[in-house]
Amino acid sequence: MSLAEGVRRGNVRATAKLITLIENHPESAVEDLRALHPHTGNAHIVGITGSPGVGKSTLTDALAKRWRKDGARVGIIAVDPNSPFSGGALLGDRVRMQELATDPGVFIRSMGARGRLGGLARATHNAIRVLDAGGKDVILVETVGVGQSELDIVQTADTVVVGLVPGMGDDIQSIKAGILEVADVFVINKADRPDARRLMMELQTMLDLDPEKGSAWQPPIERTVATTGEGVDMLMAAIRHHWEHLTRSGELEQRRRDRYEAELQAVVEDYWRTRFFEYWQREGHWEQMVEQLLRKETDPFSAARRLLTPFLDSESRRVGL
Amino acid sequence: MSLAEGVRRGNVRATAKLITLIENHPESAVEDLRALHPHTGNAHIVGITGSPGVGKSTLTDALAKRWRKDGARVGIIAVDPNSPFSGGALLGDRVRMQELATDPGVFIRSMGARGRLGGLARATHNAIRVLDAGGKDVILVETVGVGQSELDIVQTADTVVVGLVPGMGDDIQSIKAGILEVADVFVINKADRPDARRLMMELQTMLDLDPEKGSAWQPPIERTVATTGEGVDMLMAAIRHHWEHLTRSGELEQRRRDRYEAELQAVVEDYWRTRFFEYWQREGHWEQMVEQLLRKETDPFSAARRLLTPFLDSESRRVGL
Repeated sequence: MSLAEGVRRGNVRATAKLITLIENHPESAVEDLRALHPHTGNAHIVGITGSPGVGKSTLTDALAKRWRKDGARVGIIAVDPNSPFSGGALLGDRVRMQELATDPGVFIRSMGARGRLGGLARATHNAIRVLDAGGKDVILVETVGVGQSELDIVQTADTVVVGLVPGMGDDIQSIKAGILEVADVFVINKADRPDARRLMMELQTMLDLDPEKGSAWQPPIERTVATTGEGVDMLMAAIRHHWEHLTRSGELEQRRRDRYEAELQAVVEDYWRTRFFEYWQREGHWEQMVEQLLRKETDPFSAARRLLTPFLDSESRRVGL
Repeated sequence: MSLAEGVRRGNVRATAKLITLIENHPESAVEDLRALHPHTGNAHIVGITGSPGVGKSTLTDALAKRWRKDGARVGIIAVDPNSPFSGGALLGDRVRMQELATDPGVFIRSMGARGRLGGLARATHNAIRVLDAGGKDVILVETVGVGQSELDIVQTADTVVVGLVPGMGDDIQSIKAGILEVADVFVINKADRPDARRLMMELQTMLDLDPEKGSAWQPPIERTVATTGEGVDMLMAAIRHHWEHLTRSGELEQRRRDRYEAELQAVVEDYWRTRFFEYWQREGHWEQMVEQLLRKETDPFSAARRLLTPFLDSESRRVGL
């Protein structure tokens, strides 16, 4: 039985193994991913992001638990670009809520950068593909921080939840860069803190000033105390409401079209980069060309042409993808 | 007369025009850059970086003036990735020292990002190539900030000068990330401020803790008051001392080899990206493939193969570089 077949049958081991393959040897996972692709597109992918200290993991777990109550099958992918750790059903830094870890209807996975820059967003995307094809109804993708790589990851979601927490000082200022545009739902966690109300008003003011205010979807601001579960019902309702909006308005299709386009571009560039540099390492002409550049016997453009011509010629006979 | 010929003859207009071409239509500058390449490799390229407020421009101008006193021909490239402004002999935000602006032995140029991500480092690299081939003895490349793109730019230099200023609080902490490894010479500017001594000691302690401490070159720490010119003689001497070290130790050749390798890779990837996406936009199959992905009639890997095969086939007949 192939890993793809195992995934389709809901086999946890096959699912974990395929995701590990995606992380470590992506080129070996192509056949399985190819087989799974037609079975994707049913899950609601929810990205959860925000600064450290917001309580993203607690929020994610509380949401997962809430969805489980309705009988939904849930996948959780916790992404930390700063962590070299990956794999397993438990995170490197802390143990997931006991209830979730032992619930067969929940699949939990952490993913770290493992030193490979740029590859994490694609690996996450393919891990989502696996869980989607495996029959998960909801996939919660939790990312640490609000940097560019996290933005790339969170944008593979249908619904992006941005978490905030009162008393982080200039947080409302720093959130302006990038996050405002991608947020579909805001949640103020630890909303029992005294300055939660002020944060909510500040955020609302910021949203009212947003030039895109007139658009069809207005990001709601929910309030939770994730540790007690307060407000989680409302948060889930808001996320579902956004999903209904996406499907009804046709925006879901547009988002998926954009995502496929970005993915196709990434696959093509990856292919190119890997094959070309492998080819020239094998042939040993790369070093030679650099030497010639140093001796001014050639220039970078002529050198590139001399490397490209035989490669394209040999490659055109068979695309190894 | 081609622009390259004009540059070789020291024509200021031709030089400015070619750099503008590099910024706006890099593909049209290839022939001139190709012609100039054999005449490069003589200039000492000095990168000057540091946080805002360090006084980089004043330092750069003071160094330029000092080099001019020795009769050296000087080029200044001021790079600001955050600025959309480019061009001219004067910077967008302030007027360069009058003496320099009217001195025919100095060429000053500012370069901004103009919204094109990633291209700035290559454009800067090619602008350096132009000034080098045009006979400049020293090229000072001043960059704003200490982000990744600035690091990429500053690393095209033979000698990297990192500027610091007393009284910036946690500056010594924030400088640890990335900058420490690339600095060949440190300069504490505004060294007449009371806490200059403490900063110097802190920095020295940090350098003593550096695991690479045993290497052949120990970055010196110079002190300047660039506005009055104090310490600039010593700073220039340190930069020249580093240059002698580079040439004597063979490290100059190694740095240039690394730079050529990175450039060759960038040229090849640029070529690929531009040609491939142009090809598919022309043929119109890109959109079609995205539609098929949406309808699950294909998967991203098969789609990529179907796009790559005819492209490689057509391209192998003639590499248009």
